[in-house]
Formats: sequence, C-alpha cells, structure tokens
Amino acid sequence: MKKIRLFTPGPVMVPEDVMLHMAQPIEHHRTSFYRDMLADVTDHLKYLFQTDHADPMVITGSGTAAGEAAIVSSVHAGKNKVLNFNNGKFGERWGKVCKAFGLACVDQEVEWGTGVDPAVVEKMMNADPKIDTVICVHSETSTATLSDIAAIGKITQARNALLIVDCITSCGCLPMKFDEWGVDIAFTGSQKALMLPPGLGLCCVAPKAWRRIDEAECPAFYNDLKAYRKAVRTWDNPYTPANTLVLGLQKVLHGVKQRGLENIWKETRMLADATRAAATAIGMKVYSKSPSDSVTAMLVPDGVDEAALRKTMRSAYGMQIAGGQGDLKGKVVRIGHMGYIDIGDTLAAIGALELTLKGLGHKFELGAGLRAAQEVFAKAL
Amino acid sequence: MKKIRLFTPGPVMVPEDVMLHMAQPIEHHRTSFYRDMLADVTDHLKYLFQTDHADPMVITGSGTAAGEAAIVSSVHAGKNKVLNFNNGKFGERWGKVCKAFGLACVDQEVEWGTGVDPAVVEKMMNADPKIDTVICVHSETSTATLSDIAAIGKITQARNALLIVDCITSCGCLPMKFDEWGVDIAFTGSQKALMLPPGLGLCCVAPKAWRRIDEAECPAFYNDLKAYRKAVRTWDNPYTPANTLVLGLQKVLHGVKQRGLENIWKETRMLADATRAAATAIGMKVYSKSPSDSVTAMLVPDGVDEAALRKTMRSAYGMQIAGGQGDLKGKVVRIGHMGYIDIGDTLAAIGALELTLKGLGHKFELGAGLRAAQEVFAKAL
Repeated sequence: MKKIRLFTPGPVMVPEDVMLHMAQPIEHHRTSFYRDMLADVTDHLKYLFQTDHADPMVITGSGTAAGEAAIVSSVHAGKNKVLNFNNGKFGERWGKVCKAFGLACVDQEVEWGTGVDPAVVEKMMNADPKIDTVICVHSETSTATLSDIAAIGKITQARNALLIVDCITSCGCLPMKFDEWGVDIAFTGSQKALMLPPGLGLCCVAPKAWRRIDEAECPAFYNDLKAYRKAVRTWDNPYTPANTLVLGLQKVLHGVKQRGLENIWKETRMLADATRAAATAIGMKVYSKSPSDSVTAMLVPDGVDEAALRKTMRSAYGMQIAGGQGDLKGKVVRIGHMGYIDIGDTLAAIGALELTLKGLGHKFELGAGLRAAQEVFAKAL
Repeated sequence: MKKIRLFTPGPVMVPEDVMLHMAQPIEHHRTSFYRDMLADVTDHLKYLFQTDHADPMVITGSGTAAGEAAIVSSVHAGKNKVLNFNNGKFGERWGKVCKAFGLACVDQEVEWGTGVDPAVVEKMMNADPKIDTVICVHSETSTATLSDIAAIGKITQARNALLIVDCITSCGCLPMKFDEWGVDIAFTGSQKALMLPPGLGLCCVAPKAWRRIDEAECPAFYNDLKAYRKAVRTWDNPYTPANTLVLGLQKVLHGVKQRGLENIWKETRMLADATRAAATAIGMKVYSKSPSDSVTAMLVPDGVDEAALRKTMRSAYGMQIAGGQGDLKGKVVRIGHMGYIDIGDTLAAIGALELTLKGLGHKFELGAGLRAAQEVFAKAL
C-alpha cells in the first residue's frame, strides 16, 4: 500500500472533511444560502489578510488571474510606473504581466535565492521619482525565499506609492499583516495555505488602492477588480463563481479562525525548521539565503540525479515533492509545509527522502535527518 | 422534507457520483496521472465540440474568462473588426469585452428574444468589408433563444472571416457541430450541459483561428490562448489548473461518449418540448420567438408577482428556477433542461409551478401542464 502524499508547494493536500463538504448538492449563487456564505467568507478573509479596512474579493481562476487583476486594475498605462522585483519565477511572471498590458515597468533582477533588499527598493525609488507602484513577492515559491514586506511597506508608505504583494505562498501560513505593514493590494490562491483545490484567486484591496483603481479605465474585462467590488456589495459575483470551492473556503476559514493564525504561523515555522535541520543533518544544503517557512528548497547532493530522486520518492513511497523551476531545474527539490501537513507527514517525508538518497548512493548516516527533525519538534512542543 | 433541485440555466445539478469522484485525494498537475487525464479529456472534448482538427483547451475561470480569451487572442487592435450581436445579456457582454480592450467592434442590437438573422449578418458584412470577425451567441441564456450558427458559418466561411461562437448553453446539449458548421473558435463552461460545478472554461480553436492569433501579440496575459496551446502540447497548463474539476470533467465526458451526443440532444429537446407544452397548457407564453432547447423562458402571467413565484417555488418545493436578466427582470422565469435533469425532475418542476401559480391566483386547470408534458414524453419514448 502507498498513500499519495503531496508535499508540492501547491496544490497541497485537502482535508478529507473539506472534500466531502464540497461534495454536497450544489447551490445556485444567487440565493440567500450563497449570499450568506459569501458575507461570512468575506468577513473571515479580513481576518486571514489581517485587515480591518480593506476589501477581500473572490475571483474564479488561478492565482495568476488574481495577480493580473491586482496589477491591471491599479496600474494605468501612461500614468503609473512599476518597480517589479524578479527574484524567482513568480516575480518574473508579474513583470511579464506588466509587459503584456504595455505598462511602464522597471523589472529589477535580484539574485535568485535572495530576498528583495529594502535598501535597494529605497535607493531605486529615490533615483526614479516616477516609480509610484512596487510589486513584490512575499514568499517566492520557486526559490523558497522570503522578502521583508514590513520594511518595504514603510518605504512605499513614506512615498505614498502603491505596494502590491504576491502572498500566494505566505497568506495563511506565515505572518502577513496587511494593515500593519501598509500593503495596498495582496493576492493569494486557494491551493496553498488554504488547503483547497486550485481554482480560486483572492484579492484584498485597501482604500488607497481603490482610489488609484478609480483614476482610469481598466484595460481588461474579466480581471477588472471594479466589477468584483460592485458585485460583492450585494454578496454577488460578476461572473458565475466556482461555488463549490467557495463552500470549501468557508469551512477552511472557520478552521483557521478556530486554530488562530498565530498558532498556524508557529506550526508552519516548526515544520520548516525541522525540515531544514534534517536537510543539514543528511548533507543537503538549504538553497535560499532567506528561507521562507512555507516551502524548503534543498540542493540535490553531488552525484545524485534529481529526476531519479523525485521519481523514487513517488514510486516507492507515494510522496510527491517538487523539483526546481527555471534555472533551478535539476538542482533543487522542494518540500512544502503549507496547509494540511502535520508532524507525522513531515517525518514521513524526511524518512522517505533518507531512504531514497541512500538508494541513490548518497553517503550519510541513516536516521540522522529524522533525529534532527525530532529534536526541533521536542524543543518546540 | 424538501430536496433542493436546481433548474437554473447554470449552475445545474451535479451527479452525486461525479461529486464524490472529485472528492478523492487531490493529485498534483505535474504528474503522469494528471497528464494522462488531460490527454484523455482533450480527446473527449474533440468529440464534445464535434471536431477532428481543432484544439480544445481548459481554462481555470468562469465562462466569461473563456469568452475573453477567445476574443482578445484572435481580434487584434488596429487590424481586425468585429461584428457582434447583442440579442441578450451575453451577446451584450462580448461587446463590452471588445470595448474594454479597445477593439474595433460593430455592436449590433437585435430584438431580445429573437435569434440572429443570417441575412442580417450577410448584409452587414457586405456593407462593411472591414468586418473580418463575427461573434455570435448560439443559445442566448438570458432570453432562451437559439441562433442558426450553421447558416452564419456559411457566410463567414465564404468571406474567410473568423466565426467566434459562445456555445456556453449549447455545447453538450444541443447540436453544435464545430467542423461541419465552419466555426473557428467556440467556448463553453463547466456548469451547463457538462453538469459540473462552475470553475472551468473550455475553448476550442481551429487552425484558421490559430493563424489569426499568431498575427499579433495578445493584449492580455492570463487569457492569452497561446500560453494554453504551448502548455497543452505536453499535457500541461500554463497556470495551476482547477484539477479536481478536470477530474470531474473526465468522468462526465466518458458518460457523454457512452450516452452519445445525438441521444443527449434528443433528450434535451424532449424535456424542452414538454416544458413548452406545459407552459402553453397553463396559460404561460413561451417568451422566445426562436426557443433554445437548453432553457425555456416563460412570460409570467398578468397579475402574478414574479418574485413571489420564484420565492414560493423555492420555499415550498425546494425548486430553484431563474428570473429574467436585464430588461426581462420581473417579466419572465426560466427553467433549464441541461445536464443532470431527467423526466422525473421536469415533471416535478412543472407540478410545483402549477401549485405555485394556483396559490398566487392564476386561473387554469390544475394538472393541465403535467398532462401536456406527459403527452410529449409518451410520444417521444
């Protein structure tokens, strides 16, 4: 017997009770049932994003749809200028979105595996006063790297610039404080910390961002946030929503509230700490210089074939881990800590990783990773 | 006890076994499991669209996302000119998409409740040779009205123009023959004839449309069909797909193949015929002059309050029917025949409609609608 376990940094495993909850007879979205649900979801999303004054909205689409909505609604061609940081595949993607829509954008490359340096943000904004919008990925999934949004928020706030944050693999598992940090638009997806199937994008928009959005027409239709704002006022959606996923979202958000975000942040950090300790103990270097707690990227040891490693993890142990993306293809493997993953799952993944590496000829003491992880758990609990 | 039954023209009821199938442990989309599934789904989608040579693609989003993708990928600003027909809320929407993206578009109003007249298409194209793209809704959901795509396809083919068809409430329940009719791009959604929850848009693109698409850059990112074409070549998606819905899609498409599209078309027509006969028998006029078989719009009798009618249908009998949209608000109710609806459901809806109308003071012979429907069934079976 092999259970399939996803340690990919999205989609992640979905709790069985959430799956069955979503399997109940479908409801129409223009009913009091759905309107009550959307009102409750919106209220809970404010807690998730840690905001009192911003508006969370649900978009049917991948996280990329939510990111496009954030950017094209608030950055106006011929009026605004973006500073975007490319320190991984997703930072790179937001630069591509700006380009596709013909938006003025300084696409700043940052060494992959390092966070965005707030001092660089400050310097670049000082050098080019036309920059009035900063796009930054909070937790860059491709390199498992965290950037300091709190520090960047201070810089954008001081200049009255807009701060758009991709918190796709941070919101709901790492501290992400929309109001306190001065974020203007944040977006995430359903298949990460929210442990739902993919298909929902979530956008949270502050009043300052709405003022910017209202300054010009949006060059897109489906991803125009104004249509979502108008609809949500009557607990509606502008286009037919993925309502079974919204039903699941409600259930998950109730669970998040009950567990408490701070507890979830601590737990995620503990799982990441344990995995990093295990990696070091078995001679695998953590790739990122500023590691995120939602996913860990580990350099594959010399002499070990990365594809064989992932293949064996899946075929022998049912464990789906992720490889590298872009330039990191073949060089790293990634193991996630978001969502429906606990201590048991994490020990299972580390144990299988050790067995796989042993089979592929890597030299280390079998069990050293598991013991290092246990020590982290023993100290934390 | 009241079972909730959806007769809304999307979302429709989802078969229980499909719901439970989608509730199985989630798989990652970059696995052989998912790639095999997407290859099989793509193959079956060709049957659904009735095409040998075109490429079906799956987009995570509402049907509107798929429509936007079809339009903005193939109509280039400053190069092409669209003739769009507004004979209902959805025809109106595609005109708005053209406008949002700054595309040249003749937005032709047609009396709501009537189909698009092929003679008008021909006349308008003759009068303006710059028109090289026609957008037409096959089954206009808001007015329950069918247009003759086969005839319009002959006109666009003769002029080498592109024909983009919204077949959101036709594909999979009414005859829709992509190749035979000369359609160049067609799109639909998951929550109609495919009887899945909302969240997937499906686009089918012919080689002629690909050539047009390749003539210029797309002004959007998420809804750029070129990204989907590139990804599907390796059975991948450009952005994380709503993979539980794709799993459901596979199951539904296997069922469609097994039942046979022609049989499904006949069944849908029978349910629509029965509902129209029932409406006439109880003094409710069918609204459309060219009725679609996927949904029936009926004029609410004088003296009956439309909101009270729908409310009672729901509160007393658990039946969710749809009201009118736009100018038809308060004037019509709509009952769907797509997807997971059978003779029993249709009789149940007609019976409840009679009881509701009786309670609201409408004068007719109780049971006359049910008998008229039975007569249609008796003749058809």
